[in-house]
Amino acid sequence: MALYVQKFGGTSVGSVDRIKAVAERVQRFRSEGHQVVVVVSAMSGETNRLIELAGQINDDPTPREMDMLVSTGEQVTISLLAMALHRLGVAATSYTGAQVGIQTDSAHTRARIQKIETDDIRADLDDGQVVVVAGFQGVDEEGNITTLGRGGSDTTGVALAAALGADECQIYTDVDGVYTTDPRVCSAARRLETITVEEMLEMASLGSKVLQIRAVEFAGKYNVPLRVLSSFEEGPGTLIVAEEEESANMEEPLISGIAFNTNEAKLTVLNTPDVPGVALKILGPISDAGIEVDMIVQNVAPTGDYTDFTFTVAKSDFRQTQRILEQQVLPSLGSGEVRGDDRIAKVSLVGVGMRSHAGVATRMFGVLGQEGINIRMVSTSEIKISVVIDEKFLELAVRSLHTAFGLDQQNIRQEG
Amino acid sequence: MALYVQKFGGTSVGSVDRIKAVAERVQRFRSEGHQVVVVVSAMSGETNRLIELAGQINDDPTPREMDMLVSTGEQVTISLLAMALHRLGVAATSYTGAQVGIQTDSAHTRARIQKIETDDIRADLDDGQVVVVAGFQGVDEEGNITTLGRGGSDTTGVALAAALGADECQIYTDVDGVYTTDPRVCSAARRLETITVEEMLEMASLGSKVLQIRAVEFAGKYNVPLRVLSSFEEGPGTLIVAEEEESANMEEPLISGIAFNTNEAKLTVLNTPDVPGVALKILGPISDAGIEVDMIVQNVAPTGDYTDFTFTVAKSDFRQTQRILEQQVLPSLGSGEVRGDDRIAKVSLVGVGMRSHAGVATRMFGVLGQEGINIRMVSTSEIKISVVIDEKFLELAVRSLHTAFGLDQQNIRQEG
Repeated sequence: MALYVQKFGGTSVGSVDRIKAVAERVQRFRSEGHQVVVVVSAMSGETNRLIELAGQINDDPTPREMDMLVSTGEQVTISLLAMALHRLGVAATSYTGAQVGIQTDSAHTRARIQKIETDDIRADLDDGQVVVVAGFQGVDEEGNITTLGRGGSDTTGVALAAALGADECQIYTDVDGVYTTDPRVCSAARRLETITVEEMLEMASLGSKVLQIRAVEFAGKYNVPLRVLSSFEEGPGTLIVAEEEESANMEEPLISGIAFNTNEAKLTVLNTPDVPGVALKILGPISDAGIEVDMIVQNVAPTGDYTDFTFTVAKSDFRQTQRILEQQVLPSLGSGEVRGDDRIAKVSLVGVGMRSHAGVATRMFGVLGQEGINIRMVSTSEIKISVVIDEKFLELAVRSLHTAFGLDQQNIRQEG
Repeated sequence: MALYVQKFGGTSVGSVDRIKAVAERVQRFRSEGHQVVVVVSAMSGETNRLIELAGQINDDPTPREMDMLVSTGEQVTISLLAMALHRLGVAATSYTGAQVGIQTDSAHTRARIQKIETDDIRADLDDGQVVVVAGFQGVDEEGNITTLGRGGSDTTGVALAAALGADECQIYTDVDGVYTTDPRVCSAARRLETITVEEMLEMASLGSKVLQIRAVEFAGKYNVPLRVLSSFEEGPGTLIVAEEEESANMEEPLISGIAFNTNEAKLTVLNTPDVPGVALKILGPISDAGIEVDMIVQNVAPTGDYTDFTFTVAKSDFRQTQRILEQQVLPSLGSGEVRGDDRIAKVSLVGVGMRSHAGVATRMFGVLGQEGINIRMVSTSEIKISVVIDEKFLELAVRSLHTAFGLDQQNIRQEG
């Protein structure tokens, strides 16, 4: 007998039929003798419907009232799922975040879990009940309803699993696991059996939307075995493990996955004086405007007196950043020229294996060079190498790298 | 400065624009310096939508999960109304029934309020806040969400007004007050300035749907001044008062209103033996089947050996009652014959004034006789006389009585 925390997202409970299907899946686990805590999100579309209602009334609603409003979404789902379980003869009780004792701070719409009361849940589980918990929500010390921010249901699931010492936290989604890369871009992409927490964090921060970053961090911190799997089909999914476990695997690959996004734009300030403090002069006004900068590269010009300063921002901030550079930064620098490009793509190799292997960057550059793809920027971390290339080369780059690093389906688990 | 509890029903908050209009009304009271607690229902249609969702999942959902589900309806409204008030610059905080401390028993879907914590509400009011409370819902001792049953928001409003010692509980509805009778049937019907709690209870029990009976009882018991008024137009509405207050009015009318319904059917068992216990033999099997009986009349036949036994049930129970009488009751009586009629109407005169005036019944029968309307059944109480007539005479009866008892608009407050 094991204790599972199973989290089902909005798509997985998006209709009456989907809720019934979730109930059947939970019933199977119960009939095998396992204890089950189910965490659910709002039915897909419901949260947006509520946000839209609010927007029609107040274009700047207080976070407390937003939480009061949107937390009804999960409350609807938990009651419907409990009813669906009862229909199958499965004993079940639903709880809101407040009822089950998910205590958070008071940072409405992005609250952090502080502690979870587990006595009542344990009593219910021991009583043979399936415990159905509203994800994404909690309660602060004053009894106000809080929410954990979008995707917070993953965090609820992992936090509950940690608090209960569950054997596994299963995150059911509309994909059947974590892939080496996006199968829509590279048909040779394959599902990973396992991935380390660190790799998963890099993949998530690079735009792979399978799991919320905070949930993965939480799982890593509290050593919760986390599994991503499909709520629509059977399959083992992908297990996200602490690194030590993964390293026990003799066939550990050099690279676990290739992440990419096309949501950034690149800006360069050419021929700025190469003096101390220039980076601050350039980036200060930009961060003052609330714009987040991702990659940063500074090249020293051959003469040594001038430098080129390049960075990326979200595509949606591109025009504003360009204006700030031209109207504020250039005058303050006294020289230079601004170039911008919003037709770029960022491609990243991710893998804990690269820690112990030199030359991953060299091989990456070689593969891209062979395909005639120019590299515009590079940034590296311990388990990641990211390059910026022209957007039009994105698919070509991903596919070539996927093959070159041995990730293609026919090469499963072959050392790259 | 007065303290008002204002309750707005589902139609009054049925759309974004309606919610904004409610906020404006509340703002007017605030700007006059009054303290305001607002109680709201779910947006019209929302509760039915949720019940329908549940029905698609489980045709016999547990009451606890139903309460969990439908209580989200008011939670949506309170947050939206608070946002609308904020938009107008009015300080406001929303609370669910559980948060505001409306403690009930555990009779899910028809819970009764046991006590209300008012400390937090008072603190908010003193702090200049409008307190927005979800009607219809509470919390039991174990922290389960409960609901008070349909229309329970009225009860929440009155109970809060009682607990807070409010100066007035204002129930905003889609009518502008309590009328002498239904204006759709009798165009001369007029709005009453005041009506006594007792009369209101009789009107409500007779099918006048303006207020929930429990709310009126509550108001009577705790002496809460209760006012029914329109949320769509300005006007004083109708004040529901304790009888002593009303009696101070020198021009107290004999009859306050005429209630009626066409929802009942009449059944007669003819020629049953006139022996003790015959009523039980007839009504026992009917109440065993869960059918409620309203009026009951027993006539002794001229010979004295046989009697006719007549009673009314809801029209929806008519066929089943007829079957029970024919298949169970007649065999057990050993004689008799069943007659049924589902094309009847019940018309009732209501007024505390008739307590001190004899002859109201006589005058009523006279008026109906003059119009050629045959009376099928009569039942009386201290402040009510009800007759059953053929359904086709309903409008004629109501209009004639309305005129005869001085209720027509041109006769305002003329003694009948």
